[in-house]
Amino acid sequence: MTVLDRVLARIDADLDASRERLFAFLRIPSISTVPDHAADCRAAAAHLAADLRGLGLAAELSETAGHPVVLARSDGADDRRVLFYGHYDVQPVDPLDAWTTPPFAPRIATLDDGREVIVARGASDDKGQVMTFVEACRAYVAVTGALPVPVTLLIEGEEECGSKNLPAWIAGNRAALAASLALVCDTGMWDADTPAITTALRGLVYDEVEIEAADRDLHSGLYGGPARNPIRVLTRVLGALHDDAGRIAIPGFYDGITDPPADVLAAWRRLDLTPESFLGPVGLGVPAGERDRSVIEQLFSRPSCDINGIWGGYTGAGSKTVIPAKASAKVSFRLVAGQDPARVRSAFREFVTARLPADCSARFTDHSGAPAVAVPWGLPQLAAARAALTDEWGRDALLVGSGASIPIVADFKRLAGLDTLLIGFALDDDRIHSPNEKYDLKSFHKGIRSWARVLAALAG
Amino acid sequence: MTVLDRVLARIDADLDASRERLFAFLRIPSISTVPDHAADCRAAAAHLAADLRGLGLAAELSETAGHPVVLARSDGADDRRVLFYGHYDVQPVDPLDAWTTPPFAPRIATLDDGREVIVARGASDDKGQVMTFVEACRAYVAVTGALPVPVTLLIEGEEECGSKNLPAWIAGNRAALAASLALVCDTGMWDADTPAITTALRGLVYDEVEIEAADRDLHSGLYGGPARNPIRVLTRVLGALHDDAGRIAIPGFYDGITDPPADVLAAWRRLDLTPESFLGPVGLGVPAGERDRSVIEQLFSRPSCDINGIWGGYTGAGSKTVIPAKASAKVSFRLVAGQDPARVRSAFREFVTARLPADCSARFTDHSGAPAVAVPWGLPQLAAARAALTDEWGRDALLVGSGASIPIVADFKRLAGLDTLLIGFALDDDRIHSPNEKYDLKSFHKGIRSWARVLAALAG
Repeated sequence: MTVLDRVLARIDADLDASRERLFAFLRIPSISTVPDHAADCRAAAAHLAADLRGLGLAAELSETAGHPVVLARSDGADDRRVLFYGHYDVQPVDPLDAWTTPPFAPRIATLDDGREVIVARGASDDKGQVMTFVEACRAYVAVTGALPVPVTLLIEGEEECGSKNLPAWIAGNRAALAASLALVCDTGMWDADTPAITTALRGLVYDEVEIEAADRDLHSGLYGGPARNPIRVLTRVLGALHDDAGRIAIPGFYDGITDPPADVLAAWRRLDLTPESFLGPVGLGVPAGERDRSVIEQLFSRPSCDINGIWGGYTGAGSKTVIPAKASAKVSFRLVAGQDPARVRSAFREFVTARLPADCSARFTDHSGAPAVAVPWGLPQLAAARAALTDEWGRDALLVGSGASIPIVADFKRLAGLDTLLIGFALDDDRIHSPNEKYDLKSFHKGIRSWARVLAALAG
Repeated sequence: MTVLDRVLARIDADLDASRERLFAFLRIPSISTVPDHAADCRAAAAHLAADLRGLGLAAELSETAGHPVVLARSDGADDRRVLFYGHYDVQPVDPLDAWTTPPFAPRIATLDDGREVIVARGASDDKGQVMTFVEACRAYVAVTGALPVPVTLLIEGEEECGSKNLPAWIAGNRAALAASLALVCDTGMWDADTPAITTALRGLVYDEVEIEAADRDLHSGLYGGPARNPIRVLTRVLGALHDDAGRIAIPGFYDGITDPPADVLAAWRRLDLTPESFLGPVGLGVPAGERDRSVIEQLFSRPSCDINGIWGGYTGAGSKTVIPAKASAKVSFRLVAGQDPARVRSAFREFVTARLPADCSARFTDHSGAPAVAVPWGLPQLAAARAALTDEWGRDALLVGSGASIPIVADFKRLAGLDTLLIGFALDDDRIHSPNEKYDLKSFHKGIRSWARVLAALAG
């Protein structure tokens, strides 16, 4: 019986106790956005730090301008060390009356399809996922007296309110974060049977544009025709952002992008994610992105552009014959590896400015920008982790992209030079951020086992 | 000395008394939109009806669902009868503290440039203008004992709140409105020395469109690319409404339009209304309408299209990465003679619908529609009135268009078959609808004289 087999057996035998420890963590209502829960956030952090000290790690609460960070380190050198990230804070619970049982009274429930699930706020996002890693460590320590690779845990308390103090904290604690790789457990499986490693996260450039024409609102009867209408200008400019093939028409926008390796593309194709299966549940059916790209490419490996908001003129009930003085829109771009956020932003602004007719000016506001993050396809630790997950689940672990940004991953790269593997066991029906959040007991159990295997694999 | 000369002399001699009668009318705070002033509105109507009875007209208050209409008729046949329209209601007066003297305490003031003006709410819009006609009638009756042509006066009390009860009232009182021509005194001079007859009013089609895509708001990271964005669809459709030459690109939109006669176009050209002089005061300089049409044509004789409002997605501060479920716009068209509002509306809707990509639907709301109104260029009464005004002011009276709609004129045509001459003496600096509204004493005096001449001319 190998060490890993003994660790896995220990995990199986200890599952009820693991679940009880998760329940104790879930009972602390650490809602980070609600000021009244600040003490609860600190209590959750302290609870976790104490638990990690019990595993032999040096764990402390490290202060930020907001809720504290839990920082825990095992002994050992940094060249094989992994940095694990998660968060102990949870979403608010309203509407409270939509919960079947109180959100901070965790329980086991059985779904109609027979699945056993843990129900509580934070069961999936992210306390349950954090504890899969902690319990894997606990099993290793119990069986071997040590961890297979040195581990640092960084568990923050402000993920649900934008992690706004974390970049500064990371910048100030680079030495403590030294590692060879970052691991994040805050994502999902491909489906209930198929594990996934998220290797690419799209970046984001979010800009606001205001077009101004006349120096006041005008009557459309008295001025309609000669007077420049900034809504007309705005719609004309934004209406030209995409060409007929769904490509983004900004010159140079696609510069620097490369396609994923053929085997990754082939694996995506085998997933058979159809437009109907992806878009059907939200009332759509035909992909709106680049016409020559599959839905999964459009999401995982291609950039996109969306107008997230637009406003100008009269927007109330009925009619008002106004030519407004100005009109505005919020426009964002999801970026993929190879694209430079600053270049995309300036190319967008040039695109708008070049199309302004006489008498119009444009004012831009930078709302945010972050580059895409991508794990190098050839990273040895990626292959190791992938094999470990495949062993546990009996199915090839997928390498997937995520359309959304997870800023911490970009920060790890930018501030600490770390690549990140995002491995999580959440399911689409976990109702994170909603009432009756749940985490499958299978996700929890096999999640712990998965981390044990990944740690073993990373130990080489 | 002709009859007209004696009438004009009487007008000159009686000016102080005319002004006092106007002041008495102005002292009644007949603000139609403010419910507390309902009794004042009725008092103003009664005051005017009594005055008209003093001239020998059969005058009465005729009820509507809102404020009453003053209907007054002189004896005589209808084949040469003229129907005069004005309104006794006035705009609200706030901000009250911006008035130099109380709005309903009329006074004579002298401007820096020496002009004497009557200052009060309603001095110009429309009590002062109404009284130019009433005083002309009074002078005729005083001098000759009769009016030169039979006259009906229709003075309503809801013009400042949309005249919403007037069409029904007109439809129910067609017989009482029988006439050969309608006259309206609610417009302005071309400038302080140049009289004008407004012969064309643009019509209006006002539509709202809502584009719907997904059945819920989506996260632009998780769905950006494949998911159809209704703001993108809306901007693309609306951005195509105008072509590069400023023409409206809806098929058939310009069908039925003819140009004004060459002499009218020539007179307009002589006005030398430059883009700078018209657009400069509002911070613009380059006409935005059809590139091959002058500013004055764009305003007087060409249709236009404006997006009056647009909204969708997130419009608050900062950023939100949303793909909204829907997006909306209010779109209106100013029409000229020859265009059918119903055809324009359906052509617009077809234009939008034909451009909808998969998964999108459009819902339309009809906010209003009225055809353009144009006096036939060859109408003999137009030539007569024009000559009369030219005699009074010593300058050719201009035939002008108005970019804005005046629904009553369309109603006169539609419901009573009447052509309308719009003759008014307001000036651009009258501050109608604003504090310290004024009416030049010269406008009042020569306005009375002008109506005496026009009535004489219409008598033939």
